[in-house]
Amino acid sequence: MKISSLGEFGLIKHLTEKITLCNSSSVKGIGDDCAVIKYPDRPILVTSDILMEGIHFDLTYCPLKHLGYKAAMVNFSDVYAMNGTPRQLVVNIAVDRRFSVEDMEALYSGIQLACDAHQVDLIGGDTSSSLTGLVISPTCIGEGEEGRVVYRNGAHDTDLICVSGNLGAAFMGLQLLEREKSVYLQQQKEGKNTTSFQPDFTGKEYILERQLKPEARRDIVESLRKADVLPTAMMDISDGLSSELLHICNQSHTGCLVYEERIPLDYQTAVMAEQFNMNVSTCALNGGEDYELLFTVKLSDYEKVKDMDSVRIIGRITRPEWGCKLETRDGNTFDLKAQGWNPLQEDKEEPAQKP
Amino acid sequence: MKISSLGEFGLIKHLTEKITLCNSSSVKGIGDDCAVIKYPDRPILVTSDILMEGIHFDLTYCPLKHLGYKAAMVNFSDVYAMNGTPRQLVVNIAVDRRFSVEDMEALYSGIQLACDAHQVDLIGGDTSSSLTGLVISPTCIGEGEEGRVVYRNGAHDTDLICVSGNLGAAFMGLQLLEREKSVYLQQQKEGKNTTSFQPDFTGKEYILERQLKPEARRDIVESLRKADVLPTAMMDISDGLSSELLHICNQSHTGCLVYEERIPLDYQTAVMAEQFNMNVSTCALNGGEDYELLFTVKLSDYEKVKDMDSVRIIGRITRPEWGCKLETRDGNTFDLKAQGWNPLQEDKEEPAQKP
Repeated sequence: MKISSLGEFGLIKHLTEKITLCNSSSVKGIGDDCAVIKYPDRPILVTSDILMEGIHFDLTYCPLKHLGYKAAMVNFSDVYAMNGTPRQLVVNIAVDRRFSVEDMEALYSGIQLACDAHQVDLIGGDTSSSLTGLVISPTCIGEGEEGRVVYRNGAHDTDLICVSGNLGAAFMGLQLLEREKSVYLQQQKEGKNTTSFQPDFTGKEYILERQLKPEARRDIVESLRKADVLPTAMMDISDGLSSELLHICNQSHTGCLVYEERIPLDYQTAVMAEQFNMNVSTCALNGGEDYELLFTVKLSDYEKVKDMDSVRIIGRITRPEWGCKLETRDGNTFDLKAQGWNPLQEDKEEPAQKP
Repeated sequence: MKISSLGEFGLIKHLTEKITLCNSSSVKGIGDDCAVIKYPDRPILVTSDILMEGIHFDLTYCPLKHLGYKAAMVNFSDVYAMNGTPRQLVVNIAVDRRFSVEDMEALYSGIQLACDAHQVDLIGGDTSSSLTGLVISPTCIGEGEEGRVVYRNGAHDTDLICVSGNLGAAFMGLQLLEREKSVYLQQQKEGKNTTSFQPDFTGKEYILERQLKPEARRDIVESLRKADVLPTAMMDISDGLSSELLHICNQSHTGCLVYEERIPLDYQTAVMAEQFNMNVSTCALNGGEDYELLFTVKLSDYEKVKDMDSVRIIGRITRPEWGCKLETRDGNTFDLKAQGWNPLQEDKEEPAQKP
C-alpha cells in the first residue's frame, strides 16, 4: 500500500493506534502538540540519535524490523549507560517513495518489540517524506535515581576498568555482511542469476546478531544495583573501546592501563578475524556498535565485580601523567588511540558504513 | 574549513563549547551519554520534529542561520501550544559534504539565537554525515503547570474560537520566494548572467520574515495567563487553520463555525494573494507555517479576550452534528476541509515544498 494513500496523519494513526502506555511517568502519548510526562522525584535522562541510510545502516542486508529494533535499542543503551532506566521513546522518521505502508509497519514492529522488551512507552514522533533515503531519529527519556546518575567524569586513580559481554563481534558481523554484499554485487555485475543468492551463515549467527540485533545491557545495570556497586564512571561502547575509554579518561582527568589479554572476545569473533586476516584485539578495541557497557568501579568493589556474570575487569585507571596505555600479550605498552568510527570522515571515496 | 578536519567530537566541541545553561531544570548538558534534567513538581512537555532539505526547506533562499532559528522556533511553538514554557532543546543534525564548519556555525548561531530569545538551554544532539542533503531533527522539552496543560481535546459547544496574529503570511512569503527562484532558474537556463540576480523585495519584508523567521507566540500564552484565561483547547498552526481546527473538533468531538470575515489577514498577505490571483481566505485557511496559536475559550471569557492584543475571535465551537463549517462573507456556508500541507503526498512530480 502506498504511504501517500494514508497521508501523514493517517499513517501515524495506522501505525500507533494500538499503542498503550505502561509507565506511570507517561501521562499523554501520541496525538497532541507535545507528549506529557511526569517525574516528580527523579533526575530525568535524555538522549537522541540520528541514523542515516548509507551511513549507519544498509538496507541491502538490514531488514526494516531489525533496523527499528536497533534504533530503539541503541537509545536505551545510552540511558543504561547513565545507570538509568529508559521509560519513553520518541521516533522521528523520514521516508522516500521506495517505502510502502507495510515497510513502515515492519519498522514500527521492530521499534515496538524493543519497547516491549524494556517496558518503554512510544509517546511520539514526527513522520515526513525524504527525497533520498531513510532517516530515523529516536529520542529516549529515562529515569535516574537521585545521587546515582553515573557520568563519564567520575573515574579516579586505582579504579578498576570493567566491560560487559564481549567486544568486536558487531564489527566482525558487519565485515561478513559487507563481504557477502560485494560478492552479490560482483555476481550481478557478471550477469549471473542472483535471485537465489543465499550466503551460508552457519556458525556465524552470533556475530550477525550482534550487528543486526544488538541488546542494551539492562541486566548489567541491574546486577550492579543488586550487588550494591555504583560505578564511578560509565558509558556504552558504540564507537569502540579505545574511543570510549579515552572519553572517560579525558573527562575524568586520569590515565588508564588496559591489558590486551583481558579484553573479552567471543569465539566466532576470533575465527572471523582470522578469516579476514585482521588482528582480533584491534577489532575489539576499535570496532563499534557492541553496545556493551564500559565502567569503572572503586578498587574496594573488586570482590563484588570479579565474578559477576558477563563482567570482565580489563585494567585500571591511573594518574593522568601515565597516559592511556594498552599492555599487549607480549608485555609491550602502547598508547591507546581512538580509531573508532568517525561519522564525519572524508578520507574514503564512499562514505564509510559504520563503524 | 572542512568538517572532516575536526571530526564528530571536534565539531561538537567547537560548536558547543561556549554554551551555558540558564534553567535550574537543566542539570547536565552536552558531553555524556545523556543530558540530565529535573522537574520535581511539574508535568513535562516533549515535542520533536524532523526537517528535511528539499521537503521542509530550500537552501536556495533560506540562509542557514534562519534555518537554525526556525527549526528551534517551531519546536518551541509546540510547547507554547500546550500552555507550557520551553526549557531544553536537543538538536540532531546530518550534513553532507557541501557543508563547511562555517556553515555549521551559521546553523548553530541561528539555533542559539532562538534559544537565547526564549531562555532555552541547548543540552544535546547527535551529529552525523548524510549522503545527500541536510537533516535537522530538534526535540524540545518544556514545563507545564499542574492542571494547566492545554490539550486539543478540551473544546466544548459554545466555546469561542480564537487565533493570534494573522494567517497566510508565511504561505504568501513562500510563494514569493518560489516565484523569484523560478525566475532565477529560467534566466540561468537562458544563459543570462545571474550573478547579480537580486530580486526587489521592497514592501514584502513582512511576509518574507513570516516564512523565513517565524516567532513562537510566547507573548500570547503570557497574555492569557495574566488575564487568567485557561484555554479549553489549543494548538499551533503549522499545517493551516482548517487542518488544525479539524484536529481540535475531531479530538474534542465537536463541530465548529468559523466566519471568513473574522480571519485576521495582513495587508501584505492580501496584496500578494491578489498579485498571485489567489483567494486570500484560502491562503489563510490552508497555508501552513504561520506558527500562530489557535485556541478555544469558554464563552464566559469573552470579555477577557475580546480586546486582547493580537487575538481575534473567529468563530465558535458547535455541537458535533452541526459539522465543521465556514461562513463566507456572502453568507454561504461550506464544510471546512483540511487542504493543508501533506508531507507524504505523492501527487506531484516533484515532492512539494512545504506547505
